[in-house]
Amino acid sequence: MIPVRILGTASAAPGRAVTTAELATALGRDPQTVASRTGIRTRHWSEPGTRMAEVGAEVLRRALDTAGLPADGLRRLIFVNSTGGDTLIPATANQVAAALGLSGSCDAFDLNNACMGFLSAFDVAARSIATGLGPVAIVTVEMLSRAVAADSPRSYLVLGDAAAAVVLGAARAAEGLLGSVLSNNGTLPPDTFMAHPLLTGQPERVEFFAGKEEIRRIAMEALSSATQAVLEQAQVALSEIEWVLPHQPNGSMFHSVIEALGLDPARTVPVVEEIGSVGAAAIPVSLDRLLRTRSVRPGDRILMAGVGAGVSRGALLYRVGS
Amino acid sequence: MIPVRILGTASAAPGRAVTTAELATALGRDPQTVASRTGIRTRHWSEPGTRMAEVGAEVLRRALDTAGLPADGLRRLIFVNSTGGDTLIPATANQVAAALGLSGSCDAFDLNNACMGFLSAFDVAARSIATGLGPVAIVTVEMLSRAVAADSPRSYLVLGDAAAAVVLGAARAAEGLLGSVLSNNGTLPPDTFMAHPLLTGQPERVEFFAGKEEIRRIAMEALSSATQAVLEQAQVALSEIEWVLPHQPNGSMFHSVIEALGLDPARTVPVVEEIGSVGAAAIPVSLDRLLRTRSVRPGDRILMAGVGAGVSRGALLYRVGS
Repeated sequence: MIPVRILGTASAAPGRAVTTAELATALGRDPQTVASRTGIRTRHWSEPGTRMAEVGAEVLRRALDTAGLPADGLRRLIFVNSTGGDTLIPATANQVAAALGLSGSCDAFDLNNACMGFLSAFDVAARSIATGLGPVAIVTVEMLSRAVAADSPRSYLVLGDAAAAVVLGAARAAEGLLGSVLSNNGTLPPDTFMAHPLLTGQPERVEFFAGKEEIRRIAMEALSSATQAVLEQAQVALSEIEWVLPHQPNGSMFHSVIEALGLDPARTVPVVEEIGSVGAAAIPVSLDRLLRTRSVRPGDRILMAGVGAGVSRGALLYRVGS
Repeated sequence: MIPVRILGTASAAPGRAVTTAELATALGRDPQTVASRTGIRTRHWSEPGTRMAEVGAEVLRRALDTAGLPADGLRRLIFVNSTGGDTLIPATANQVAAALGLSGSCDAFDLNNACMGFLSAFDVAARSIATGLGPVAIVTVEMLSRAVAADSPRSYLVLGDAAAAVVLGAARAAEGLLGSVLSNNGTLPPDTFMAHPLLTGQPERVEFFAGKEEIRRIAMEALSSATQAVLEQAQVALSEIEWVLPHQPNGSMFHSVIEALGLDPARTVPVVEEIGSVGAAAIPVSLDRLLRTRSVRPGDRILMAGVGAGVSRGALLYRVGS
């Protein structure tokens, strides 16, 4: 076990709630059909000009409040994002730290692993704390509204903006990661892609290259195999796990995962219908909702399973302490 | 101490060697004056279209050869870069893994902390290995030639392309990080900046906002204080340290650091005159040259000190094992 404790969490959906009906109508499509196929009713789109660093600083402030920790108690701040943050230089993590007035007390860097970024960062944070560098904050901010356009309707109809902060610190007894299994399969064909405008010299957006069924097949296989691998590592059966938080790329895939794993829906926290497909923010937003709205008890286990472009995949199994 | 062993290293300067004389002449400046002010004689600029992932895979293959490790022996691959990699989605680390034919054996993600990225990644890699996840490869590729233009002469005249790979694994006795001190001071004004073309909708480049003397003052203070902090943590005096590898943003600042710290130049490895200002690649390239060309002995200590936009700063003190 990697000892680590979730000290506090917070989440936000910045900007206006944009309805699927509104977008479908603008594209000349049937609102009901689009809503039913995507399983998404609304998503939030930030006002143009909103900085990820300010949204990130705001959720981090709330997570620190919940944790009862002053900002200068942090030793590391990991900013997770899929699209390169607010600025390429410096790393946006530094701007989040600056917004909190930090000076000299905290390491800060950006981590990008598409939709898997939060799980990668949680693993790094846990290993940092276990070797004496903590508390650690993970600030995940996705503003995918910056990376969509109506002429790429597949991503336009599903992507949204969301943010979450998770503050991690030293564990109490029997608390931490019972398992962490992260891996990559770069031999699979690219499914989700966003070119770098620095190289192409033109505005870029998120594109889905693979067909819908192909993406579903890859994602389902990745989520199932990652779940299986972490359960084997921890020597626990899925039926014993109290809470399961899979990545939620769309509503229909979320329900397929729940069904394929044979999970009682009461053990999960759906968010995709309300906030859309929010990249690396989906799991930490659902984690925040879980801890705020459900009766999570000492000893409960939380399984987080993700898949992202790369293809990157993985799962963490966290045991709640006393 | 965080136990970790450097198993193998490699470095490269991709593309054509571009002389300072050539660039100065094109800008109508005196070649001698520019060369003497920057302390840079040549830098390499990659052919347009060169992918960071292919350059990264090539240096990683060589570092793995030196380490005597097959690629599928890696458990984590951290790709370090300041400008967003080849693609924003997926993370470029996944493409490096794919180029090595990896499938399911290795975690992969991108880390950005401007010029401090390699030291951040080394700390993360060491903590990963110390908690059971290793070996870890750090692949640093900077292609700053993509982020310069003649109408921003300050960055145009100094930035270059370079790559280095460092493979880390389980330590032998008394081997590893004697100290690791990383921090951020976001309250300082921005000195080095690169806007995100996704937000600005136009090509972007690296710009130096602060005056030359201001940047020098900030960098010198950061390098000195980080060096002091890591020596205090490890309870060692600078005079006892065998090898010192500071960040090398330009030749003149490199010499000032050596002078300010009172170091014998034979204990350092200058690279900036030959490869220019190469962001996060400067320290790992000098580390590779150190291990290949100097008589580094068991028990020797290597101090790596960096500073980057943010302002981010830090130092690691590594003790060589047997």
